[in-house]
Amino acid sequence: MNRIDGGITAPKGFIAGGLCCGIKNGVSDLGILVSQGESSAAGTFTTNLVKAAPVLVSSQQISRGKNRAVVVNSGNANACTGERGMKDAWQMVEETAATLRINPQEVLVCSTGIIGEPLPIDKIKKGIHELGPQLSPKGNKAFAQAILTTDKNTKEVALEVPTSQGTFRVGGAAKGAGMVHPHMATMLAFITTDLEIVPPTLQRCLKEAVELSFNRISIDGDTSTNDTALILANSASGLKGEGKNLQAFQEAIKEVCKTLASMMVKDGEGATKAVKIMVKGSSSPKDGEKAARRLANSLLVKTALYGEDPNWGRLMAALGSSGCLVDPLRVKVWIGDTQVVQGGEGMPGAEEKAHRIMKQRGYTITLDLGLGSHEYWIWTCDLSYNYIRINAEYRS
Amino acid sequence: MNRIDGGITAPKGFIAGGLCCGIKNGVSDLGILVSQGESSAAGTFTTNLVKAAPVLVSSQQISRGKNRAVVVNSGNANACTGERGMKDAWQMVEETAATLRINPQEVLVCSTGIIGEPLPIDKIKKGIHELGPQLSPKGNKAFAQAILTTDKNTKEVALEVPTSQGTFRVGGAAKGAGMVHPHMATMLAFITTDLEIVPPTLQRCLKEAVELSFNRISIDGDTSTNDTALILANSASGLKGEGKNLQAFQEAIKEVCKTLASMMVKDGEGATKAVKIMVKGSSSPKDGEKAARRLANSLLVKTALYGEDPNWGRLMAALGSSGCLVDPLRVKVWIGDTQVVQGGEGMPGAEEKAHRIMKQRGYTITLDLGLGSHEYWIWTCDLSYNYIRINAEYRS
Repeated sequence: MNRIDGGITAPKGFIAGGLCCGIKNGVSDLGILVSQGESSAAGTFTTNLVKAAPVLVSSQQISRGKNRAVVVNSGNANACTGERGMKDAWQMVEETAATLRINPQEVLVCSTGIIGEPLPIDKIKKGIHELGPQLSPKGNKAFAQAILTTDKNTKEVALEVPTSQGTFRVGGAAKGAGMVHPHMATMLAFITTDLEIVPPTLQRCLKEAVELSFNRISIDGDTSTNDTALILANSASGLKGEGKNLQAFQEAIKEVCKTLASMMVKDGEGATKAVKIMVKGSSSPKDGEKAARRLANSLLVKTALYGEDPNWGRLMAALGSSGCLVDPLRVKVWIGDTQVVQGGEGMPGAEEKAHRIMKQRGYTITLDLGLGSHEYWIWTCDLSYNYIRINAEYRS
Repeated sequence: MNRIDGGITAPKGFIAGGLCCGIKNGVSDLGILVSQGESSAAGTFTTNLVKAAPVLVSSQQISRGKNRAVVVNSGNANACTGERGMKDAWQMVEETAATLRINPQEVLVCSTGIIGEPLPIDKIKKGIHELGPQLSPKGNKAFAQAILTTDKNTKEVALEVPTSQGTFRVGGAAKGAGMVHPHMATMLAFITTDLEIVPPTLQRCLKEAVELSFNRISIDGDTSTNDTALILANSASGLKGEGKNLQAFQEAIKEVCKTLASMMVKDGEGATKAVKIMVKGSSSPKDGEKAARRLANSLLVKTALYGEDPNWGRLMAALGSSGCLVDPLRVKVWIGDTQVVQGGEGMPGAEEKAHRIMKQRGYTITLDLGLGSHEYWIWTCDLSYNYIRINAEYRS
């Protein structure tokens, strides 16, 4: 498995592009990704009960698993927009199909941005027809740019996977910087591969990879109205996704999703730290998850990370209120490789060493509950002044 | 029911005081409250599984409901301090009993402040013996001052309740400014009355009042290692807490607790707004609570409150991810008296009016889910730059 350039258009047979159609002022806001041949598709969508129009449309479109194109706009989420929103999302599908000369059933649609305002659909329609002829195998960067909102950086990755029968590729692009609670609050991820895979298998592989990546940075079960992860698999590599090829693909898609997720954490709104919270020794898997998510979501923990303060008391307090079974006398805590808590009490002299570790941009906090053999991990980031600035001033 | 001065020493037969014993640098950090005659007692304690030593000691001491004194220190929570912490908490009990010449079984103890550091017990012992002779019926303010941590203001209230048989009084003092998640993370409340009430009745009345006050500002079920609410009831008014007297007392204790809770919200760390979130029309009581707590705890909602931004999309997104049953098409939302959402969509032209309401220091956000007849409310505050400053820099 080798890291290569090219993002979502690294796999053979995919073209993409992006441009500014005028939703955002002078900033790229419309992207299209398409497989030149037929492709399988799979997707996971937000569990939020308030679902944006494009989520409803794409969920319906993907039910047969036979989609080859995605149109995405940023700057406007097309959420809480009623019947007009649904009509607009369908229009995006139809105009994209028209410009690409494919069947409308093959097109998926995503939006991200402000909730509750109607799309400037005429600008978007014009943009789609302008963008169609510009799509190219080198359009990955323009696409990755077009889907961003408050992200500081584009998020792209591609892998080449050699097998005994030849080589296939997996590419990805994503947006999402608001990992505290996903901002406005959307995480979008697009994955491509030139391996031939049937839709049910593709769906299973995507779900597994999402669980170990994007679901490990979405804190507290919070999901946006628009969260979506999509994968398109054409067969341009000439390889079939079976046996060892499929195993290799499962590894590759996990790696692609983890890489994109870690890019989101590092780009967290106003974040200066990316910290892995590892909870070991819980008496059940669910308990470990509860504890990890509570710690990752605690404002007191997150401000301590920002302040580079080895305040293990806040970790203990969050742990005790997580709903996870805890016996304080059995708890051990490490910051990086420095143990700061033993039997629920502080280790003398450990705080200075821990403080030095917390000056790093990334490290792991490990809690061993001493009650069982289960473990769960999650990524979090710190809470800084800039988070407040970005989110208090987002619309003004 | 009339508001009067005097806080916890407004009811007859109570004396109190506070001083600086040296835990905090030159700031008052030790308080004692005592009934001059016998008294009943009741308490509610944190549900956090990591309980501070004073919580363990007071839970045991209060089991017979026959306590008349409380000793409290601020600046150090005596939490995660192991055997030494337990020994120190018992020492505080014994020294207080000695200086007051009462039975040690009659003394309760509370601590609030930094977790994980041993108490400077010699300073505290010295302070207790110095404070004992200074206690007075006018010591309420000094007590209310001694229990504060990051609070900007003391929190006191007292009510005089006339009945057909005479007059009794209820007083209270509290600390707790970190209502986002209770800071460091402790809420302490002390209530006194000169009405005669048996311990089981007192416990029931306290529990009901706490549920409608302090539990409505503790967001997301987060509790500290030290949270405690205590009530002492002597019989100095000569009235018995039965029949109409008891009814009047139940009203009065609710009013006292609500007043103290609202003072905490207004004093929230860095808070500039105190906002009531009211969720009506949920299909079950539990659902309404889930929705209200999710909204009150959402960083995106809280930063929008700070930004005075009528961003109802964030309210809808938080609602949809709360776990509460929601049909977006039935949802109505008001900011103050201005309806901003109807059928899950924005009301044209409402945002400017809503923005003006959000400039106020306090207002109500109401959501009607249109699914049933249940309702639940909770208080929240905004999330400002100052919250980050206070919590990132607390120990440095």
